[in-house]
Amino acid sequence: MTRKELFENIKKKQSFLCIGLDSDITKLPEGISKTAEGIFEFNKQIIDATHDLCVAYKPNMAFYESLGSKGWVSLEKTIAYIKEKHPDIFTIADAKRGDIGNTSKLYAKAFFEQMNFDSITVAPYMGEDSVIPFLEYKNKWVILLALTSNPGAENFQHYPHGGKSVYKEVLEVSKSWGDEDNMMYVVGATRGQMIKNVRDIVPKHFLLVPGIGAQGGSLKDVVEYGWNDQCGLLVNASRSIIYAGSGSDFAQKARAEAKRMQEEMKQLLKTHSVI
Amino acid sequence: MTRKELFENIKKKQSFLCIGLDSDITKLPEGISKTAEGIFEFNKQIIDATHDLCVAYKPNMAFYESLGSKGWVSLEKTIAYIKEKHPDIFTIADAKRGDIGNTSKLYAKAFFEQMNFDSITVAPYMGEDSVIPFLEYKNKWVILLALTSNPGAENFQHYPHGGKSVYKEVLEVSKSWGDEDNMMYVVGATRGQMIKNVRDIVPKHFLLVPGIGAQGGSLKDVVEYGWNDQCGLLVNASRSIIYAGSGSDFAQKARAEAKRMQEEMKQLLKTHSVI
Repeated sequence: MTRKELFENIKKKQSFLCIGLDSDITKLPEGISKTAEGIFEFNKQIIDATHDLCVAYKPNMAFYESLGSKGWVSLEKTIAYIKEKHPDIFTIADAKRGDIGNTSKLYAKAFFEQMNFDSITVAPYMGEDSVIPFLEYKNKWVILLALTSNPGAENFQHYPHGGKSVYKEVLEVSKSWGDEDNMMYVVGATRGQMIKNVRDIVPKHFLLVPGIGAQGGSLKDVVEYGWNDQCGLLVNASRSIIYAGSGSDFAQKARAEAKRMQEEMKQLLKTHSVI
Repeated sequence: MTRKELFENIKKKQSFLCIGLDSDITKLPEGISKTAEGIFEFNKQIIDATHDLCVAYKPNMAFYESLGSKGWVSLEKTIAYIKEKHPDIFTIADAKRGDIGNTSKLYAKAFFEQMNFDSITVAPYMGEDSVIPFLEYKNKWVILLALTSNPGAENFQHYPHGGKSVYKEVLEVSKSWGDEDNMMYVVGATRGQMIKNVRDIVPKHFLLVPGIGAQGGSLKDVVEYGWNDQCGLLVNASRSIIYAGSGSDFAQKARAEAKRMQEEMKQLLKTHSVI
């Protein structure tokens, strides 16, 4: 998917919502079997109930890998289902991969060829040759970890304290590896003001922003600091949507929560004259 | 596996060799079908031919994921085969995972429960809460990326240039998360002198050293700078062993190369009075 297509979808759907398919076998609602097959059934119902309200889905690999090869099958079925039913939706493999060049190439093959994801999250620690192989695919995207939303982000992303932080160095160095048409950055929503620091370095790139919802980040802050002239934001919510209900009406409850967020986003898109 | 057991195996086998099962479907030798099932058959023959010469096997996930769920099945079969036939061999999931706390917990479940690996490589970028869930398993290990062997290591691991490098901060901060009984570090062999810098910070931990063989690192340098009183080294070779031959005698060729390395290691263990 191109940046232009993504922006068109945002305008059409009046939403910049990404739904995280962090489908945990221990949290499956009433009526869904607690098996890898159940995970796919759950995802299908969530997708059916929310696809018109979001522009992206983001399964996190850990939830699937924790079920072994059967979980991997559920993941493959989920991505195939999205691609078949809703080819206009941007798909993100939240995999946080990264390895030496010839090995990253195989990760790219796994996520871009075997499963046809539009994008993958990548960890920057191993540097340029660990990222480049993903950028060699046309119309596919790297979403590089810059500033994450968890407490441990303090340890190394903000190092050296008092100097120029690692996350800023990651942004500055990596932006020459690709451009705003094939790279995005993960920037946690729990760090409102810092999104501004990120925007100063990468004004044009899309930012994937987790941490809204269960992790406590504010959509208003994210928009205040992260907005650019093409929206420039994909805001993710996972648990707050997919586990909005635990009864047999879980899909309607998920839809209601996604709708609530989409309405808020619609207002923000209007305020910023995008729609 | 405990550190004591690992050291006993090193003495018994007169080897600190780790063999990387980076089994690439495009490089399978004559007589092995180029399928996911073929990957398992290849691994089995490599294991049968080398298990008495090495103390660890390290499959890199990318090679299996690139084949989708079928590749994941080959991986599960490979680890089950090692555990059944050679339970004294230390197994390393070269996965370079790392995510927010509740998600890393699921990765730990995937590799330590679903597949019963002894250890997993973890990327440090997301900090403490991304690593701790792996340390909560008794007799399982985190092998944290510190200084990798690829060119991209220069980008962030050595930042800030002139100041205290990120890789040193990673070592210093992370060593309080666990200890030498449940943590090791990845330190690339292509950076001989720098292994000494690592040893100054973590004198007692085992180091997993890739980069010998195809990547050009020298075993002599690694031992000179990285040795400690319990050997403290697992030296990995992948391509130079598993692709030593491409004909139907590939397993014998792999054995010959593993044997050559083991003999060299035996001499070093003698020189250092470990055996």
